This record gives sequence, C-alpha cells and structure tokens, in this order.
Amino acid sequence: MVIMARPHIVIVGAGFGGLNAAHGLANADADVTVIDRRNYHLFQPLLYQVATAGLSPAQIAQPIRSILRKAANARVIMGRVTGVDRQRRIVRLADREVAYDTLVLATGSRHAYFGHDEWESVAPGLKKIDDATGIRRRILMAFEQAEQTNDPTARRRFLTFVVIGAGPTGVEMAGAIAELAHVALRNDFRTINPRDARIVLVEAGPRVLAAFPPSLSQSAEQSLKRLHVEVRLGRPVNECDAMGVTIGQERLEASTIVWAAGVASSSAASWLGVEPDRVGRVVVGRDLTLPGNPEIFVIGDTAHAPGRDGKPLPGLAPVAKQQGAYVARVLRARLAGRAAPAPFRYRDFGTMATIGRRSAVADFGWLKVDGTLAWLLWGLIHVTFLIGFRNRFVVLFDWMWSYATFQSGARLITGQGQH
Amino acid sequence: MVIMARPHIVIVGAGFGGLNAAHGLANADADVTVIDRRNYHLFQPLLYQVATAGLSPAQIAQPIRSILRKAANARVIMGRVTGVDRQRRIVRLADREVAYDTLVLATGSRHAYFGHDEWESVAPGLKKIDDATGIRRRILMAFEQAEQTNDPTARRRFLTFVVIGAGPTGVEMAGAIAELAHVALRNDFRTINPRDARIVLVEAGPRVLAAFPPSLSQSAEQSLKRLHVEVRLGRPVNECDAMGVTIGQERLEASTIVWAAGVASSSAASWLGVEPDRVGRVVVGRDLTLPGNPEIFVIGDTAHAPGRDGKPLPGLAPVAKQQGAYVARVLRARLAGRAAPAPFRYRDFGTMATIGRRSAVADFGWLKVDGTLAWLLWGLIHVTFLIGFRNRFVVLFDWMWSYATFQSGARLITGQGQH
Repeated sequence: MVIMARPHIVIVGAGFGGLNAAHGLANADADVTVIDRRNYHLFQPLLYQVATAGLSPAQIAQPIRSILRKAANARVIMGRVTGVDRQRRIVRLADREVAYDTLVLATGSRHAYFGHDEWESVAPGLKKIDDATGIRRRILMAFEQAEQTNDPTARRRFLTFVVIGAGPTGVEMAGAIAELAHVALRNDFRTINPRDARIVLVEAGPRVLAAFPPSLSQSAEQSLKRLHVEVRLGRPVNECDAMGVTIGQERLEASTIVWAAGVASSSAASWLGVEPDRVGRVVVGRDLTLPGNPEIFVIGDTAHAPGRDGKPLPGLAPVAKQQGAYVARVLRARLAGRAAPAPFRYRDFGTMATIGRRSAVADFGWLKVDGTLAWLLWGLIHVTFLIGFRNRFVVLFDWMWSYATFQSGARLITGQGQH
Repeated sequence: MVIMARPHIVIVGAGFGGLNAAHGLANADADVTVIDRRNYHLFQPLLYQVATAGLSPAQIAQPIRSILRKAANARVIMGRVTGVDRQRRIVRLADREVAYDTLVLATGSRHAYFGHDEWESVAPGLKKIDDATGIRRRILMAFEQAEQTNDPTARRRFLTFVVIGAGPTGVEMAGAIAELAHVALRNDFRTINPRDARIVLVEAGPRVLAAFPPSLSQSAEQSLKRLHVEVRLGRPVNECDAMGVTIGQERLEASTIVWAAGVASSSAASWLGVEPDRVGRVVVGRDLTLPGNPEIFVIGDTAHAPGRDGKPLPGLAPVAKQQGAYVARVLRARLAGRAAPAPFRYRDFGTMATIGRRSAVADFGWLKVDGTLAWLLWGLIHVTFLIGFRNRFVVLFDWMWSYATFQSGARLITGQGQH
C-alpha cells in the first residue's frame, strides 16, 4: 500500500488575500503553511488612524496564529521570503527552504516614489505598523517643536503638514491631521495655537478620490476645505526634502510630509522570474494562476488580474479577499477531483472614504452617499470587518469616546525619534 | 508702582511625583513649567502587562498636556535636561536654558546593573514604553524561533525565560510570562508546545517580595510554582550574555532575560553637584528640600528622604505621589505667606503584587490577604488610579476579556527587531 503525502499548500503573505485563502482551506485535506514577515494580520484600512493617534496598533492587528488557531492543518512561519524556485517547487527563506505543491503569493504592495527613492526618508508612506507609529511621532513632535521654538519661520514650518496623493489614504490622513490640530489638540499648548496648523493635500491628478464618481470627489473636497485642509490639484511634486516640498512652482516649507501617492507591487515577479506589468505586478489568468504554472496563484495587490472591462482589477482589500476565497474554492475542487470553478469575477460592493467627524463618501454603484450617513456606514462596515470581537468592541468604544469628548486616544511619541 | 513677576516653578519629570506637584499647583498664583523627555505620563505599575502582551501602550499612558490642560498656569516642555545651575537658578536643556525661582526634581530611577552595564543589552530592564515593547518583541520572537528551529538545544534555549530580581516587577513579569506560555499561546503552535516553556525567577536574597511580610512571600512563591515558574533564591547572577545566565554555579541557557533587579537614581545628584547616597539618590531634609537650598525640592525615586524609622523612604509610586502633593502644599503656603506645613510624613496604605489569574498578595499592615480577594483588590486599585476614564474602562474591559477568553490582547511584534 502506498500512502500519499497530503499536498502542501504554501501561502506567502497574511494580508486580506492570503488570510482568506488560508481560512477557506481550514481543515481541508491538505497541509497549509502561511508565511509572513510579521506575526500579525493588519487591518490596513484603519492604519491611518494609528498614524494620527486615534487608535492603538493592537486594536487593528491580530496575531496570525490566533486567527488560524482552529485550522488544525495550518501552520504559520514568521519569516522573510527571498525567492521561489519554480522548477524545484521551493520557497526560499533567509534561513531555509520550504517545498510546496501549490503556491499562493499574496504579498501586497509598497509605496513607489517614481524613481525618487531618496524621498522615502523625508516623506514616509503608510503600510506597516511601524510606519504608522513613525508618522504619529513626526506629527506629534512637530507640534512639540513648534511650541518650543522662538523662530516664527521655523514654527510655521513645524505647523505645516503636507500629504502627497489624494486617494482614500491621502484624503483620510489629511482629514485626520486637520481634526487632530483643530479639535483634539486645541487647548493643549500655551505658545502656539494648533489651529494655526496648515494641512496641504497635494494631488497630481485633476480631483481628489479619482476612483470615485466626480460628484463624490467634489463633496470630499468641500468637506476637506471645511476642515481647513488646503487642496492642491493638478500639480506634481517636483522635490521633497527635510525642509519641505516643491509642487509645480510652489515651495512649501513643511517639517512633516506623508506619502500616499504611488503604489508598487512586492517582489513576487522577481521571485518568480517573470516579466512584471509596469507597476511591478505579476500578470495572471482569469483563474488567478501564473500562465503555464497552474500550481502557482498570485492574488491581491501584487497580482495583475483581468477585470471585466479588460483593465486589471484595482488594488483594494475586497478584491484581495474575494481572490483569496476563490483560490481556496479552486484548491478544494482540485483536492476533491471536481471540475474547477468558473473564472474569478470581482463583485464590487462599493468603495468608501472618510474625511472627518460626520463626513465621508460612499459609492455603492446604485447609491452614492456623503455626509453623516456615509460616515456612519463607513464606521459600521469597518468595525464589522475588523477581526476579533474584542477589537471591534474596543475600536467602537474609542471612536464613540473620541466623538463625544473631542479627544484622541493614542497620542504617544514612542520609538527611536524620541529624545 | 512695581509689578512683581509671578514666581516660576519648574518641575522636571512628569512621573507620579512631578505630576502630583503640578496638579497641586494648578491655577496657583505662579507659573509652572513641567519638563519631561517624553510627551506622556506613564502608569508604570502596569508596564509589565505591556511587556507581556496584555495591554497596549496607550492604555497606560496619557499625554502630559492633556492631563494639565485645565491648569492654565502650567506649560509643558518636551525636552531632555542636561544640568542645573544652582547659582544662576537655571535648568539647562539640550537647546536652551529655563530660569526658575523654585525647582522640583522628580526624575525617577533607572535600572542598575551593579557595575555590569554590558548586561543591559542582553537583559533589558522595564522603565519606558519602548523597553516594554522591546521585551514583548523578545518574548514573542522566542516562541516564533522555537517553532522554526530543528535543533532541540536551540529550541530549549528559545523556550527558557529568565527574570532576574524577585521584587514586585520581577514576580509580576515571571507570572505573566508563565500565563502567556501556559494559557494564551497554548494552541497557537504546531511544532512546539508553549507549555514546555521554562520560566525561571532568580533572586539573590532569601525570599521573593522581600518588602512584604514573610507569610505573603511564601504565598507568592507557592502561586509562582503553581504557574510552573522555577524560583531560584539566594543566588546572585554571575554572568549574563546573549546565550543565557550563570546563577551561582548553575548555567541556564536562555534567549530571553529580563532585568528587574537593581535600581539606580536619575542624574539629579550630578546635575546639582551634590554627593549622592550609595544608590545615587539626592539626600533631602524632612521638608524634601536640598539642605541650604530651600528653593530646590527633590522627590520620588530620585530622593533620599528620611522615613520615620530613620531609613530612607522606599522608591514606590505612593511615596512619590504624596511627596508631589506635599511640595505643592509647601509652595502654596509660601505663595500665600503662610507658615510652612509640618515635615513630610509618608502614609503607608499598603503594597500589593499580582502573580497571575486570581492570584495576588496585598499587605495593608492591619490586613494581609492573598489569592482571589487580593487579586480583585489589586485590579480595582490599579484601575482606579489609572489616569483618564477612557483608559480605566478600556483596561478593565481588556482584563475581563482576557480572563474570560484566556487570550491576551496585544501580541504584536513591532519595532527594529522585526524582520
């Protein structure tokens, strides 16, 4: 009698895509290994609230091991992948190799500085928890430094905050910094008035939230202006340095710059040795596999998967989640010897972005809403999708508390920049 | 007519002592400046819960500015003091000088390695939030590394945790690591069994919790043993390195070592140019002023203040708090031209330490309790003294949640050590 080993499915990345794939494979007749550089799954849509001192990291992150505790066939490896050997079917980590029968790459994206990688140190992006606590440190330190300086030019520079890129993250960051300055900090200083802070949102394109219908872009822009955010449209950033940014011909002296503009994919394409698309994604077929390699799936932000209109699907959490669940269905069909499911189709349930207190925009296709209703929906949906009842409850409590008291809960300056 | 400037009271350090002094002087007829290196007040008695993944930093810290928001005469400077000029009555910071009429030094303590400062990098202490998140990273990474290694010797080293010093912090750390291993993590790994973790508590003296009555020391030691903590008494640490510790003649291979032993005062004595006592404290009189300098108060852990029995008062939060309040009363009397209050007398309301689930010891002098009752009292008292209703509520919720679900809430590996 020959005992066949159970097939080994290796999932790299425990973001929305990878985690949903692992969930869908829980207790399937296969061994599942999830590899991630971090020990936690991060609810990235709320990361900007950590960066703006509204929430604590642990409220939007959950250990991967806890999430997969009941999936007895799943193990978790914390480690950094350095390459993939497609011939030998091996994933290489820093200190070892992991063999796979099926590989799912769900390694997400990082920020792109359009050939100006030297801008990263002065204009950090927002992808990881350490990014968020670093940006929080910069923002809070800027107010501290403004309070202490006697030089009006320096004070003005400390109180100028520039957010580059007016997609959802940029809009949410700009709105949240404005609320921090105008609401939460308003009585905390003696020399400066935090309300003097200038928040400038810079966008190379013609409108904010370009992925939304123009009417909602307009509504979002008006909400930002009500929060005293200056919106600069149609002007690219020409220069970024420790003292400020140059936008078109305009120079803005600013000590805090946040990058929310370009997105580049992870290293998945180079691991696989395939030609990436122009933003670094791996081009996959309608079944999300690498052409010629049915045992390799690529999903989420790092995949270039065809949408219905021929354009690639956008790098959104719901796309990654649905793709993860789809991959699990495909693999369960293969394990059972059933026919493969129909090609992947993204079901768009809508997109939202929040701007500030009682202000958000939501586009459900058949319904476009803004203002208080959109804001309540935004909160409801984001709390619902947070993993873990405890996190849901505590985030909701913190939001209600902030709303009622005009305070923000996590205004700590921690880490290296501390002196 | 001559208008006298209002006297300027400078308080260095926003721990329990400094903050209580500032509170007591709120809206007095003087200008108050609080200087601290950090932007937050830290509730240090719960810091070990951050280090053991039970609580988030923001739950036990509050911005100093928020706390003093309503004290219109108080300003806050975030900065590092480098010296004091007693003649010119000036506090020197890195980038400027601050003149004072009255100076209150409440700069706390740090860890002492008894002449082995090189041990600090392998056996970090627990004073700051960054210490706590650093120790949390070490503890959680040790389990991750144990899960990944195939070498049984290395696995055993990763799963050995040594806590040096069996005062309240050491006992609480050892108990919390044991609970993390035996309760919260028990189902999270596939290769290792976290219950195999060895937790060793090392103490040079003859019993744990030496400041408590012997009966409570014995009760605490039994509770620790029930949690499978190995207690090594009467043996000093001879060697600490990256691979373990040597205690007396015994070598313990351990990848995680936490230092909870010696305490040394801050630099206050050297700033003042006075001779410190043997643990670095500034010797003050019964009115907590520096002899010959009635305008300089030294309080809290950094002060050697005489107790009733002639011995110096211990470095405890209640001592610092009462001293801060006392200084405020003295200064208010001076401002009003009233006679000085009677010399400072510490009122000891008791001390407590917690060991684990439903296990603590409390010594109120007239009453000594242990077990569940002491544990409930410990929780009640610690939540009561947390600053801010929001923190009280959220910590209480997290504790109840952990108690009910056997989970811990903040198991994130963040910071530099991440790969």
